[in-house]
Amino acid sequence: MVKAKRSEVPKAGFDLSATREIVLNKLKQLGQRIVEQLVMKELPEIKLPARTTSNIVYDADLRQYVLGPKLVTRTARNVKHLRPLSQLLWMALFSKQLVEKKKTSTLRDAFYNAIGFGIDFEDQNESDNVVTELESLLGVIREDFNIYPEERSSVFGPLVVQYNVPGYEGSRLDLTTIPDGAMIGPAMATARFIKCEAKQVFVVEKGAVYQRFLEEGVSKTFKAIIVHTAGQAPRATRRFIRRLNQELKLPVYIFTDADPWGVHIANVLIYGSALAAHVKELTTPDAYWTGLWATDITKYKLPAMRFNEEDTRRIAELEKDPRYAVDPWKREISYFKKLQRKAELEALSRYSLEYIVTNYLPEKLEEVKKG
Amino acid sequence: MVKAKRSEVPKAGFDLSATREIVLNKLKQLGQRIVEQLVMKELPEIKLPARTTSNIVYDADLRQYVLGPKLVTRTARNVKHLRPLSQLLWMALFSKQLVEKKKTSTLRDAFYNAIGFGIDFEDQNESDNVVTELESLLGVIREDFNIYPEERSSVFGPLVVQYNVPGYEGSRLDLTTIPDGAMIGPAMATARFIKCEAKQVFVVEKGAVYQRFLEEGVSKTFKAIIVHTAGQAPRATRRFIRRLNQELKLPVYIFTDADPWGVHIANVLIYGSALAAHVKELTTPDAYWTGLWATDITKYKLPAMRFNEEDTRRIAELEKDPRYAVDPWKREISYFKKLQRKAELEALSRYSLEYIVTNYLPEKLEEVKKG
Repeated sequence: MVKAKRSEVPKAGFDLSATREIVLNKLKQLGQRIVEQLVMKELPEIKLPARTTSNIVYDADLRQYVLGPKLVTRTARNVKHLRPLSQLLWMALFSKQLVEKKKTSTLRDAFYNAIGFGIDFEDQNESDNVVTELESLLGVIREDFNIYPEERSSVFGPLVVQYNVPGYEGSRLDLTTIPDGAMIGPAMATARFIKCEAKQVFVVEKGAVYQRFLEEGVSKTFKAIIVHTAGQAPRATRRFIRRLNQELKLPVYIFTDADPWGVHIANVLIYGSALAAHVKELTTPDAYWTGLWATDITKYKLPAMRFNEEDTRRIAELEKDPRYAVDPWKREISYFKKLQRKAELEALSRYSLEYIVTNYLPEKLEEVKKG
Repeated sequence: MVKAKRSEVPKAGFDLSATREIVLNKLKQLGQRIVEQLVMKELPEIKLPARTTSNIVYDADLRQYVLGPKLVTRTARNVKHLRPLSQLLWMALFSKQLVEKKKTSTLRDAFYNAIGFGIDFEDQNESDNVVTELESLLGVIREDFNIYPEERSSVFGPLVVQYNVPGYEGSRLDLTTIPDGAMIGPAMATARFIKCEAKQVFVVEKGAVYQRFLEEGVSKTFKAIIVHTAGQAPRATRRFIRRLNQELKLPVYIFTDADPWGVHIANVLIYGSALAAHVKELTTPDAYWTGLWATDITKYKLPAMRFNEEDTRRIAELEKDPRYAVDPWKREISYFKKLQRKAELEALSRYSLEYIVTNYLPEKLEEVKKG
């Protein structure tokens, strides 16, 4: 455990109370706009960014997908719009109650709550879509109006956080005191970073590698915060990683399996997903995908499995994606195509359990930094 | 947060050092037996419990599946046995190193490590099977020789644990101090229970319900430890729940979705799985399946989805299983067959987010206690 004096973190950074205030104001403005229209005896309408494929464009400067300028209108003037307009306004009401009551919820809870309220949703997909609409209308991510994913990933390392959720206001946690790592739930996701002695962040896809890093004392020897995504990173974790990078100015290194899914887990952490083109708080464009690369399979002589049809199809898809147009993505995708094989991070255990920490990790960090 | 003085927990209970000692002795005895046979110029052989279907029997007293008296022999005398015998002995070696070095590993790591060692495994299935063989030979669960599942569930409530893993020997954690809940990894799974103010344990399948229980202060108002299984409970969590029941004498109440998979999650927690017939440390026979029942769908007028073919097939399977021959299982399976519908725990949100805590939970506890 890190015992030395920790360096203070700058006072700026994520502030739950301020975020709450901003979101409540946006929601109130939305409500006021509707009320004003009604008072003026106008049929209420709302304009919001179109999320159609043609309006999702890749922004090379921002290095993520963003929404174009196209807007859509939801107006009570059109009888076909009445349903989606009511759904959107109900979701805004539900979100306002969550933020005011300082309670969190999930997409599924929102759906069932709507049903109980008599709001007509065909299925959860339809209600999920309205949550996304509300995000793009307000310009904030849904975690800011307290709708969280159910999945949890976890974190360990020389960082002290200060909670701000009800019952824990001001209480602090030193992340090195929890030997299994601390979960990234709503409390961790909204905590302030108070003291940090880390020099870098390692993000790993696999639980076995996370556990190995913890047991080998990587957080101490490499002065690193270690994040376990547990597969595709939940959105709250994507923002958490972004905060580590932006608020603490820590470089972020990502380790995934060497297969089309692992590659994409890293890519989404860095550049974001096309589905989240309407928000900008979930990406870490300066993070490095550090491994496991396709070329590592050959270089480290790893036990590898042959691609199945799905893998081949997926790699062909990624090749056409603008987020994969630069190295290391481009080079590795092309090597995958040639190799037609994939390997898991745990394959490095063929040398020894510790090899990934004693050899692979320092070698790859060196390689990526040389760029 | 619970601030009152906590009651002391009896000194007995899980002891990591003692377990380590026992497992190391068993492994040494295994090695000695082989060496002695070699010294006597005999071809080494091992007898172990047969895990064939015909030798897996339901024990109504123990209320779980157990292995019958049939044994199988692995002997170097038979050239066909050489491979599985070597695999088993290598796995024993690997496990001994883990326990001695106080490191944990996973099934997948074990497989790749074996490959690097030149041990011939067709695929991970084959090596997983050898781990199970080692469990049944030693009569301990694989977590006791430090092979852990990758999945993590979590826990929150008025309990103080004392860690015993390297670097944390003697350090304590009050589980109410982590607002997102603490993960049940190797450190938590092997921690000693030091102080407990809880009167009962609530086990929930769904993350949304776990979060709801935490935010509504259920651990305080119901004096409860709350465990989130995140679907089918990982084995380390199954043992953890058993320990809460047996060491702390706390009643355990289980809440799952009302569908064939939810029912089985509860059933496996209580009676164990047929696949784990060779071990007895993973069940909690006195736990209660408290909901969501098929009959709750009607009673609480919940939004429910029609069964698909897979659901219907699965319910028919469960009906034939001896673990489902008593109520509430029998009654609920029969009601599922009649209803042909399923519902999620979150469906209770149709009344309000808080309804599950303010109404459903106390009503169901009352109902289950009346029996």
